[in-house]
Amino acid sequence: EDVFPTSSSKEVLVQMASELGCSPTSMELASHLDHNDELQHLREQFLIPKVTDLPFTDHSVADATEDCIYLAGNSLGLQPKRVKTYIEEELDKWEKMGVHGHTTGSRPWAWAENTIEGLMANIVGAKAEEIALMNGLTVNLHLLLLSFYKPTSERHKILMEDKAFPSDHYAVESQIRLRGREPKESLLLVKPRQGEDTLRTEDIVATIEKEGDSIAVVLFGGVQYYTGQLFDMPAITRAGHKKGCFVGFDCAHAAGNAELRLHDWGVDFACWCSYKYLNSGAGGLAGAFVHEKHTHSVKPALLGWWGHELKTRFHMTNEMELIPGVGGYRLSNQPFLLVCPLQASLEIFNQTSMAALRKKSMLLTGYLEYLLQQHCSPDPANPRKPYVRILTPARPSERGCQLSLSFSVPISTIFKELEKRGVACDMREPDVLRVAPVPLYNSFRDVHRFVAVLREVLACEAL
Amino acid sequence: EDVFPTSSSKEVLVQMASELGCSPTSMELASHLDHNDELQHLREQFLIPKVTDLPFTDHSVADATEDCIYLAGNSLGLQPKRVKTYIEEELDKWEKMGVHGHTTGSRPWAWAENTIEGLMANIVGAKAEEIALMNGLTVNLHLLLLSFYKPTSERHKILMEDKAFPSDHYAVESQIRLRGREPKESLLLVKPRQGEDTLRTEDIVATIEKEGDSIAVVLFGGVQYYTGQLFDMPAITRAGHKKGCFVGFDCAHAAGNAELRLHDWGVDFACWCSYKYLNSGAGGLAGAFVHEKHTHSVKPALLGWWGHELKTRFHMTNEMELIPGVGGYRLSNQPFLLVCPLQASLEIFNQTSMAALRKKSMLLTGYLEYLLQQHCSPDPANPRKPYVRILTPARPSERGCQLSLSFSVPISTIFKELEKRGVACDMREPDVLRVAPVPLYNSFRDVHRFVAVLREVLACEAL
Ligand SMILES: Cc1ncc(COP(=O)(O)O)c(C=O)c1O
Ligand SMILES: Cc1ncc(COP(=O)(O)O)c(C=O)c1O
Repeated sequence: EDVFPTSSSKEVLVQMASELGCSPTSMELASHLDHNDELQHLREQFLIPKVTDLPFTDHSVADATEDCIYLAGNSLGLQPKRVKTYIEEELDKWEKMGVHGHTTGSRPWAWAENTIEGLMANIVGAKAEEIALMNGLTVNLHLLLLSFYKPTSERHKILMEDKAFPSDHYAVESQIRLRGREPKESLLLVKPRQGEDTLRTEDIVATIEKEGDSIAVVLFGGVQYYTGQLFDMPAITRAGHKKGCFVGFDCAHAAGNAELRLHDWGVDFACWCSYKYLNSGAGGLAGAFVHEKHTHSVKPALLGWWGHELKTRFHMTNEMELIPGVGGYRLSNQPFLLVCPLQASLEIFNQTSMAALRKKSMLLTGYLEYLLQQHCSPDPANPRKPYVRILTPARPSERGCQLSLSFSVPISTIFKELEKRGVACDMREPDVLRVAPVPLYNSFRDVHRFVAVLREVLACEAL
Repeated sequence: EDVFPTSSSKEVLVQMASELGCSPTSMELASHLDHNDELQHLREQFLIPKVTDLPFTDHSVADATEDCIYLAGNSLGLQPKRVKTYIEEELDKWEKMGVHGHTTGSRPWAWAENTIEGLMANIVGAKAEEIALMNGLTVNLHLLLLSFYKPTSERHKILMEDKAFPSDHYAVESQIRLRGREPKESLLLVKPRQGEDTLRTEDIVATIEKEGDSIAVVLFGGVQYYTGQLFDMPAITRAGHKKGCFVGFDCAHAAGNAELRLHDWGVDFACWCSYKYLNSGAGGLAGAFVHEKHTHSVKPALLGWWGHELKTRFHMTNEMELIPGVGGYRLSNQPFLLVCPLQASLEIFNQTSMAALRKKSMLLTGYLEYLLQQHCSPDPANPRKPYVRILTPARPSERGCQLSLSFSVPISTIFKELEKRGVACDMREPDVLRVAPVPLYNSFRDVHRFVAVLREVLACEAL
């Protein structure tokens, strides 16, 4: 599995630099890496903000004419150039045909989302029939939990991370209460060991083995939003299944980032949003996955007309003909305005593969890690020199593209100074800077520029 | 309440025609009515499809250069011209600022929908704090029912129309099952009397009085999607409350069509979509209303981060600080791409008032009814002449703008022939043509042209 062990990025970089006769920390190497990047043309399909347009740019310290250093794709992906074209096509159809847009054109609104579910399936390792594009992520998580979390007096717990994304935490607590139970009895949280930032798979598995008989659902993020840890989804799924639990993943930070094989791993259900690595714009259409093995056994709890077979949906008989599988979880008709941007983005993904993206991603994030280690590590000779600590696991197989950084000096000043210099990244309370070089549109040069700016900022802090 | 009794449109029309010295069925009167229409300028703010662009136009029978006769606003409202501008503003922001769009500009994505809730509140007669814009309609109906439908062994029924919109029917059935009950015991349906098309308020009220002790929730449409009947919402609400039931309305066909006073009537909850009379485009952002009296008593059952107080939402503490009232029912972040079109439309509404729109609407629909009565009634002298029957109640206070028509000849041919001639209206299984002159953008001339085309079509059918 671990095709790219910890040290290999570093070795590749050092080796390449020596062949070029340059330093591995030089801009020359970054340019060389970009030049050899087989995916570099994908960047051209995105609109990259300019330094001059960012709201906090300080022209006295930034070159405003440059592309900004956009490392916030974990929070909001950049806009594919085709988004505008596709939206204009649909606005044009609405203008010209009104209600007839439901059944005409390349995205008939009455089933527009169905036209791109196959593209999505490729990205998360699923069959098209296992995918529904609908609603927002938290809505989908609820719809899935209503079917997969049906506590009994023996098996009533949900196991999740201690510091899961707030929305997931609230969702799970409310599901437990909806079923007449209390989180303090039915919510089981796994914490990192004392002094550690991330969870050990062995601890997750051990908890499942120990508590599994009382666990109804194991729910983890695919990639942890705060630490950037990529969980061992197959191992967690196996452990859960061995104890008779359902296993689901919130893939908000994993879809379009890590290589997922939801189907092959036998994951029971999953959901994700599309505005991060999937570049669909804030509030974009979310995804839901239900494994085909549950097609006839795990039925949706809440029904609506969009879960009715398309062929007879508009016969208005009030006799439900439920679409088998995840399609039956659909409630409302979906907005074509959200299908357009997602389609534009998924088409770019489908010009390559998650395997190819992941290969670049490992080197790109490995490069970021290497430069940070070289330039921003603690200096025993100068203990007052500000330094960076990486919370994210060092093993590439345990992380996606994001590195989460903490600092020996207050983070808010650093963040502000980065913003003045044309860096877009993301600070999360209480004290982490999340930096995500996205293989789809970020370059090695972006990463090099980021570390150069960060060094400048840290040098000021040292004064 | 009944400011505009049955006969008055007819009287107004006949009187006006006699003053003009023309026939009340003449195009001259239609032009005069348009000329005197104080709201006619609103039409200019919409994009009206041309006959030539409709997919089924037959150029041998239609004047392709004209505006089409768009009478399908009950199904999909037309596009406000500003939609494109607003969407472009946001795409531009996304292009230039990426993730910073969440907090900058006139529609900061992190709270964009909140910026237009006040505009929506005016249209449905609510306070801004009683409104949430989110999700699709069926999703909202479920979220509301999860809080308002908590059956006990005594009080476990939901009362609704026999032929409610399918999605509502499926939603209610599934809610009953989710609570471990069976629709055949807990779903109570009110039917029209034998030989009648629409429900009598007295029958609804009598059912509530008789069965009320076992009814948990009374749920009606505001305007019935099929018959166009406008229910007496205040009377139903009063009757329900007298028996201790919660009373909710699906206002899909009422919002932007009828004058609603959800707050003053004391309605407990309501939901609606925005793509019909509210012109937001298919799948647009739906609305939800929870009366302020329930702010602290009826809590959302399912929680998500978007129901967390905005001030501390992003502190990521996993300690829920629930927004009181309907705001707390929010789960996911909402798409700015759906806020744009809805804003464009709501701004047009807010240039006038529902009272003014409703006044025009009564005359406009009365005019349609009058012309149909004059031209398409059964002819005792010629029993083979095809005719039209209006299912919708004759009293203006019992209908919105839509008239539902049935025909003495097969409807599908008529529908096709209308489409060939540049009419966009909507056929619903099994045999109703729904015709909705919308006061916001339809003209009296539209109505006149429609009836002329319909006469032509019916004349062909007679052959
Ligand atoms: C009365 C009524 N209820 C529910 C719906 C379903 O709406 P949605 O697909 O937005 O959930 C509709 C749609 O036309 C409707 O007219
Ligand atoms: C892991 C995770 N779960 C849930 C959410 C909430 O998403 P939504 O607002 O689309 O429901 C997010 C959003 O960033 C997330 O990162």
